[in-house]
Formats: sequence, C-alpha cells, structure tokens
Amino acid sequence: MFKAGIYHRPESEDITLLSEDTVAIRIKTALNDIKKIKLLYGDPYLISADKPAISQFLIKKRHDDIYDYWELELEQKTKRLAYAFLLEDYDGEVSLYADQQFYHPNKQISENGSAFFKLPYFHLIDASIGPRWVKETVWYQIFPDRFNNGNINNDPVKTLPWDSTVSPQSDSFYGGDLEGIIEKLDYLIDLGINGLYLTPIFKAPSNHKYDTSDYYEVDVNFGDKATLKKLIDEAHKRNMRVMLDAVFNHIGDQSPIWQDVIKNENQSQYIDWFHINHFPIAVNSDITDEAFSKKANYDTFAFTPHMPKWNTSNLEVQEYLLSIGEYWVKEFDIDAWRLDVANEVDHHFWRQFSTRMKQIKPNIYILGEIWHTSQPWLDGSQFDGVMNYAYMQHIKDFFIQNDQTPEEFTNRLTHELMLYSDTTNQMMFNLLDSHDTARIQTEVSNEKIVRQLLMFMFMQPGTPDIYYGTELGMTGGDDPDNRKPMAWQLANEDNITYQNTKIIIKIRRQYAKLFAEGNLVLIPLQDGIVVKRQLGQKIITGVFSRQSTLPIEDVSGMTVLFGNEDILERKLAPHSVFVYLTK
Amino acid sequence: MFKAGIYHRPESEDITLLSEDTVAIRIKTALNDIKKIKLLYGDPYLISADKPAISQFLIKKRHDDIYDYWELELEQKTKRLAYAFLLEDYDGEVSLYADQQFYHPNKQISENGSAFFKLPYFHLIDASIGPRWVKETVWYQIFPDRFNNGNINNDPVKTLPWDSTVSPQSDSFYGGDLEGIIEKLDYLIDLGINGLYLTPIFKAPSNHKYDTSDYYEVDVNFGDKATLKKLIDEAHKRNMRVMLDAVFNHIGDQSPIWQDVIKNENQSQYIDWFHINHFPIAVNSDITDEAFSKKANYDTFAFTPHMPKWNTSNLEVQEYLLSIGEYWVKEFDIDAWRLDVANEVDHHFWRQFSTRMKQIKPNIYILGEIWHTSQPWLDGSQFDGVMNYAYMQHIKDFFIQNDQTPEEFTNRLTHELMLYSDTTNQMMFNLLDSHDTARIQTEVSNEKIVRQLLMFMFMQPGTPDIYYGTELGMTGGDDPDNRKPMAWQLANEDNITYQNTKIIIKIRRQYAKLFAEGNLVLIPLQDGIVVKRQLGQKIITGVFSRQSTLPIEDVSGMTVLFGNEDILERKLAPHSVFVYLTK
Repeated sequence: MFKAGIYHRPESEDITLLSEDTVAIRIKTALNDIKKIKLLYGDPYLISADKPAISQFLIKKRHDDIYDYWELELEQKTKRLAYAFLLEDYDGEVSLYADQQFYHPNKQISENGSAFFKLPYFHLIDASIGPRWVKETVWYQIFPDRFNNGNINNDPVKTLPWDSTVSPQSDSFYGGDLEGIIEKLDYLIDLGINGLYLTPIFKAPSNHKYDTSDYYEVDVNFGDKATLKKLIDEAHKRNMRVMLDAVFNHIGDQSPIWQDVIKNENQSQYIDWFHINHFPIAVNSDITDEAFSKKANYDTFAFTPHMPKWNTSNLEVQEYLLSIGEYWVKEFDIDAWRLDVANEVDHHFWRQFSTRMKQIKPNIYILGEIWHTSQPWLDGSQFDGVMNYAYMQHIKDFFIQNDQTPEEFTNRLTHELMLYSDTTNQMMFNLLDSHDTARIQTEVSNEKIVRQLLMFMFMQPGTPDIYYGTELGMTGGDDPDNRKPMAWQLANEDNITYQNTKIIIKIRRQYAKLFAEGNLVLIPLQDGIVVKRQLGQKIITGVFSRQSTLPIEDVSGMTVLFGNEDILERKLAPHSVFVYLTK
Repeated sequence: MFKAGIYHRPESEDITLLSEDTVAIRIKTALNDIKKIKLLYGDPYLISADKPAISQFLIKKRHDDIYDYWELELEQKTKRLAYAFLLEDYDGEVSLYADQQFYHPNKQISENGSAFFKLPYFHLIDASIGPRWVKETVWYQIFPDRFNNGNINNDPVKTLPWDSTVSPQSDSFYGGDLEGIIEKLDYLIDLGINGLYLTPIFKAPSNHKYDTSDYYEVDVNFGDKATLKKLIDEAHKRNMRVMLDAVFNHIGDQSPIWQDVIKNENQSQYIDWFHINHFPIAVNSDITDEAFSKKANYDTFAFTPHMPKWNTSNLEVQEYLLSIGEYWVKEFDIDAWRLDVANEVDHHFWRQFSTRMKQIKPNIYILGEIWHTSQPWLDGSQFDGVMNYAYMQHIKDFFIQNDQTPEEFTNRLTHELMLYSDTTNQMMFNLLDSHDTARIQTEVSNEKIVRQLLMFMFMQPGTPDIYYGTELGMTGGDDPDNRKPMAWQLANEDNITYQNTKIIIKIRRQYAKLFAEGNLVLIPLQDGIVVKRQLGQKIITGVFSRQSTLPIEDVSGMTVLFGNEDILERKLAPHSVFVYLTK
C-alpha cells in the first residue's frame, strides 16, 4: 500500500457540508493503488464497544494521472462525526487511516473513536456555500469607458472617436459611461445576461480606474451617483444583478490621501496606512517601474509607483476600506464585489470584509481576482469564488493549442476540480477572456473553435461570464488592444458568433440547476471529449471534436439542444460541438 | 518518481513566516524517493527571460516512516514570492513541481513564474506567531475547589474535610478558593512557575464550573471580583501570567438565560441563541444522558442535557460571548484564555474572538482545548496553540507502554510535529495530565519514569504545564479521582519528585529560548532516545533509557544539567535520563 499517496484532511476541500446534517467526504489515494475503501463512522461521543462505528463503502469517482478520488455522502443527525478510512489495496493489504495516522485495523480501534478523524460539529456558517442566485447567473463584463457612450456631456477632455477597428493606446479615452450601459440593458437582456460586472467606476485618473482617487465618488466621466442608482434599479427591475470592482490592494497616487503622505511624510496622519520603506517618499512622476523597483521607497502593486499598497494590517485602514465596502452595498444595493489583486491583501482583512458584507446582505457574492490555486481564500471565510483563469487555461490549451491528449486534458480538469469542494466549484467565475487577457477570437481565429470553447465553458460547474464584445466576435490582443470600443455594428442577425452565443446562454439558463449542481463526468475520446452533466434522471451530454471526425451514438428520441447540423450521419465534423438532453 | 507522495501547500503549515521578509518553506516527499530538491524562486513580477528564477537546494531535515521532510529558509526583500520545486529522484528522473502540478522542467518554465506556487505578499498579521512570553513560561494548572482553601467563610454548604488520600465524588466540594491561590503564589514561585492556568471560576453550580450560570460573576465559593483582581495583581507583581478558562461551547442549564428558554419556549428572547430541535424543550432534571440522546430536544455538549450548546452563528450570541471575552481582559488584565471544547465552536466565531482579544491585548495567548489534529484552528487566525494531548500521548506510550521501538517513536513525534509549522509547535501547550486525564503517577508508578516523562516534555518545543500536585507525586485515576484536594503534606525536601520537578523547571527556564526555538533532533537508540536542542552554538542533549542500560558518550568538559549520578561509568541505568550542555 502506498501510504505516502493517501491524503485526506478534515475541514478542507475534502469535506463539503451540504446541509445542517449532511456531509460529503473525499479522499485521494495514489492512482490504481487502492481497491476499496470503507468509511467507519459515528458520533464521537457514542462510538464504543456497545456501539462500534458503522461503515459504508466510498465510491472511486474520478482519477487524474496521479490520484484516485473517492467520495461518500452521508447524513449524521447529531451533526458531529468521528470517522476513519479502512483501506484495502490490490495486494490485499489492509490499513486503517484515522486522524492523520495509519493503524493496523483491529476491533479495539473501531470501538474507540478517539483516534478517528473528527468533524467536531457541523457549522453552516463555516461552510463554503455561496449564494444560490449565482448558480443561475450568466455574467457580462463591461469596461465602462469602452462599452457605450450614453452622455456626451460627461466625456473626458481628449475623447477619441468611437472606432472599434482601431487599437486604443493605454491612455486613450472613449467616453463610455453609465448612461450608456443603461441604454443597452435591453440588449443584454436579449443576449440572456442576468449579471453585470463593471470594472472600477470610482473616481480615478486612468481609463481603467484601477488607480482609485476617491472610493466614495463615481468617476465624473462615467456619471454620478444618481446615474449609478438608476443603472442598478433598472438592472434589478430586469432581474439582473450588479457586481462592482473594488481595488483594496492599493490606492492611486493622485488620491488626496497619498498626496498627503507625499507632502507631510512622517507628519502625515496617513503615514502608517502604507508600507513605507525609506524617505523621501516622493519619486519623479515619470520614473520607470524598473528604476522604481530598485528604490522601492514604498511597497506598491507590482513595481508601479502610481499604485501605493495599502497597509491592511493597520486598524484605521481596515475600517476605512470596510466602510467603503459597506457603503456601496447599503446605499446602492449592489449584489456582488469583485476584488482586485485579492491575493496580495491579507486573509485577516478579507475575513472581516466577508463577515461585514454578509451581515448587510447575506446573499452577496464575493469574487476574488486570483490566478493561481486559491484554497486559502476559498475555505468559506473569505471569497465565494475566484476568477477561474486556471481552469479555463486548460480548456483553451486543449482546444486551441492541441498540445495534449484528451486523456491528459480530462486529467488536468479533474485535478483542478479536486483542488476545491463541489460547492466551491459551483461558485467559480469562468471566463474565456477579460480586460487582462487577449480576446478569445484573437487567441483562435476559427469561429468553430470559439463556439466549442463557449459551449464547453457553459457546460462546466461555475458561473460563466462573457467579456463585452466577445459575443460579437470582437478581436484584440493583449492590453490595451483587448479594450477596443464595443463594435455595435456587429450586433446583427448575420453574426454567427452572436447568434450562437445567445443560444448557448439560453441553454445554460434553461438548465441552470443541472449545469450548476449536476454531477460532472468527463470522457476522453480518440480526438475529442464528452462532457456529461447529470441531475436526477436528467442528463445533458456534450460531444466536442478536435481535428478528426467523431462518430456519434444514436440520439433518436433525445432532445438535441445544440449543433444539430452534424448528426444526421451519426458523425461530428472536426472542431464541432453537439449537445443533447436525455431524460 | 512517486508523484502521489509529493505534497506542498502554500499558506499551510508548510510555510512559516519568520519575519516581514523571511520565510521557511517545507515540502514532503515519499520516504527515500527523492534524492535532491532545488527551489526555484523570485519575485512574481520579476521572473522573466532576463531574470530567470534563482535557485537553492532544500535540506532533507527529517523523516518519519512515510515521508521525507525538506526545508529551506530564505529572505525575499520584495515580500512576494513565486517558487517551484525541481525534484530529482534516485533514478535520475527530474520533475518540476509548481502550483500543484508537475511539469517537464525546461527553460521556458523557469523564465515564467506564472505557473509557480505563490506567496503573493508576506503578511505578518496572517502568520501563526504567538506571543513571545509564552516561550518563556512554565504553566501550573489549578482546579480551584481543590488547590487551597484560603477563606472558610466562602465555603460551599457541604464542604468536605481536606483529605488528599480520599477519592472525591463527582459532586464533592472542598472549599478551595482564590484567596487560597494567593496564599500559595510564593510556593509556585519557588517551584519555578510563571504561568497560572485556572479552570473555570465563573458562577456555576458544579465543582468544576464548566456549567456556567453567569459569565460576568466570580463564583461566590471562590471569592469575588476584588479577590480575583488581587490574585492577578499579585501574580503580575511576581512576573506570573494568568490564564482563565472560558466555556463558550455551551452554557449551564441553571443559567437565567437557559431558564428563560425553558419557561418561555418560542416566546423567549433567547430562543435563537441555542439549537432547539423540538418542543417541549424542558426535560426531567434526572434524565440520563443516554435517554436524552434519544430525545435530543436541543443540542448539547456531548449528550448532557445540563449543558445546552450555544448557537454561535447567531449575531447576538456572538456579541454576548465576545463581550465577555473582552470584559475579563480589559477589566482584569488576564493574559490568556483557555477555551473549553473549542473544536465544537465555529471558526467564524473564533476568528472574531481572536481579532477582538488581540485588539485589546496584542500579546494575549489563546489556547484551544482540542485533542485531535488541529490545523484548521492553528492557521494564525484563531488559536496560538492547543492542549497538546496528541503529542504527549505518544511520549507516554513510549515510556510507559513500551509498545514501540525507539525508531517508531521518533517517527510518530516527527509526524506529529510536521502537522504544524515550527512557530505553531512553539505555542503548543504540553501536559502530562490534567483534570481530564488520570494523573501521570497513576498511569505509571515508577518514579524514575515519571521523571523521564517530565524532562522529556520540558525538552520539547511548546510551553510545558504541570497539573497541581503532579510536582508532589499525587496519584489519581480518571475523573473524579484525579481531582483530589492538594496534598500539601507532600511538599517537603524529602519528596524526590518535588525536588526533581523544581530542577527540571529551573533548567527549562534557564535555557528558555533554546528549548522554545532551538532546532530539535531526535535520535533513536537501541532501547532509548536522544533529544538534542540546538540554538546557535549551544546544544543541550538529553539521553533517555528504557529497560536496558545505555552507553553514554564521553561528556568531560560539558556541563551536566541533570542526572549526573549515572555518568561516571559512561553508562545510563534503565529508566534514567541524563542531560548535558555543549557550547
């Protein structure tokens, strides 16, 4: 038995609390090492010689190239659980894996729960269960300067003509604003969107506004608080949720607070609000990031002197930023916060943030921007989900780079999913592109592959998001090319990408519960992959081909949801997708 | 290469933040699988083709029977780290282990930190670094009804005569009180104690007072607030810290709050403060735990109807209990909280508790009562340490049960230590016995073995504790036999255990920094074990024999600290301990 490959940890992603008294337990073991696993369990105060632990087999539910993953769901009325794993390998060796130790199994140990793993009491308040509405949401990300100019009176001084065919510069302005978004709400409703994600709208000098000057003001080029209120009201009237973007890792150097630090240095009341390394604090405004990195007078986002990093261990800073978080929820009834550079802010701060926001609005969605594995933030105490770049990258690599076998691909996705509990995976924010990546249509020009990627993403656990214009097939390389003004002229019935996106969104929303909560099965094919989602008796199957033509099973009697042009001859053309429903 | 056995997780016990910009990194690999590991690392924003990651070898520092444990300490001035492990096994196979995935190592990947593990920013506020004073503390646990009766005017009605030779009943009272403790502070100082841990002293009907009636009152049989104030002042004058015991998992059923629930049921203002399963709530006062477990009208501690469990997800309950926590710190200047049944209260509550207590008193010590592995509470957000029953059990098993080889023993201790970071291990509360276990002198009658156990415990990382009377060799089986009145008549110069305990405490306190922070090496012998602690050039070595006589190295020129009766013939008698200092 390969004990070093056996791993389970209570109160981690291996444990999912499904209700007040129901729990799902997961354990991983080295690939093909273990033949069967029985869970011994009971109430920690009851297990005894009179009442030995009861037992139930786990199911080997998935594997990747390194581990088998086993699962079991069980009800425990007393809400307390002592448990241990009785493992048997293919050589017949048996071992009991209890509280992070291995034992020779014997009667004595199964009559004494003291050595067992413990879930001392099931607390829903600690569980990573996000708001239910997120499971039914399809998001749309708007970069407000570039979406729609609804009011030319609030345009920035050097507003450029709205031309979606020209690449913007990093300091270009186009005059997009909140009124522009309001004008287009019905366009979004028609597309199928019910969640709006706006990159920052608070006062800031740049076009992206990640360099906040005043967290309590809507940027004058975007409108005012009344317009924001109206936007949120109009969205809510249409059952559309609104997510704003908070930049709590750093402030903009043009802010009065930072200017006070620059001016008054040690005498500034804000001196402890930042991480000052040495004096003088001020640097030339045209200093390069590289030159600044050598001085590092103060800590910043990356090495950008224009973004001084908050000292979030300072109590005044905590209160200042937490109050801002509360203000926009309380006063403007926003439904979600997206948190910029969330991984570089301390956990202590985020825990307070989550507690305070959920006290005001229990079903608020809290989304962190984190690109790497994120378990430390997804333990139920901080974020509901993160921007799921990591998972989506595997999907893009598979369909676009063609650099792995379908089996390798399913291994990678399985590995990624098993980093988190199922309920956490349901809250992940899935996206093909954003203001921080090249656009998907530039990463791959083949419209059929883009369609596959969209459908594949929409069939995954997690809440899907469309970057403005991606539904129209807009192109764009890395920042700032990915931030062109919206190509409204492409929004017409002849645009295949637009029409397909609408259909894909419609399917997702129609079967929202299944796509959010259904069991996921990935089946690698010779040169393609099958995705199955199942909830109760209902199964939706998606078949995705790569470079070869794939045979398709007989689907007569089933409901075809997507891609029916290919099935008559029971084969799927290269780079195609076909989705059907079995009841 | 056995990839399933390779495990590292950022922001877990595998990472210890040692200062603002210094970090210790740990990784485990299957025993004897990996030959060498190089860490590739750099600032995540700097790693590039121009500035590829730099590298440094990790050291294989320990092993148990399943894993090798590798470590490296490094300084990173920018306080941000991207890192990956370049592993080579004994067959020459090489693999790069980055952000929870394995890669074929190549130039491209070491020039691109995006796939690396991340420590996005070093935050001391998230680190599990407890208060420094704890490292220099030797604790003494007092069960107040049984330590010393300083005031006969506050004795309970049925106070029994103070007779340490008779077993108490579970409902006996002996009249011990706070004045009695004050009277004996100089006894404790003479013993070497500088930390006092009192089991609960708040108003409660039982002798143990884990069934609180009023958290804001000192129990009248123990004294009053003025006496408590005096006790703490007198302790502080002697540089002795004071830890009180808070029972926040449940309340006593005699409390006015619970009585209100019983009386008013659904109309009680406190109805949501508890976990009510069904009505009527009241049960007969003489109902057995077993009978109650079948009704379970409300959730309780274990199945004890007299201890209704708090609903700590209720905001009012949170505020009520947090305010109590604050009250005794603010008004009485206590130095530490011991938290009863801490594992059954939610993390969300404990995080708030820690934040609020540390805001009032940043160097307060927060100790949880948890008997099983405790990583979920020791992540820096909740407790500084837990009652280290798990670690101590291995030590007792080795010396008393004789049921394992010295090699098995070092494996078990190493395994246990590797569950936590070094800084967490320094805060663990080590104890041989308590009011919840049989006394050590009853577990093993051989005084020499008790002496070994004491010395072994005092040489371990963690803060050691003596249960009242253990220094005098008091005996007692399981509760209530372990709670006899203090045997003051044994406190004399002829009592070997008493004299040895004093010496052992003195050694610990004299070399407090070394025993707290020094590197620990465990060396199994044929039938014994060597413990080495090293800090800088200073090494203290302890040699412990079991049933055989052990040869001893030549220690001429070294300073013998303990056990010099055995060394002249360069051998150590069975069940002996010998400790010396090398500079």
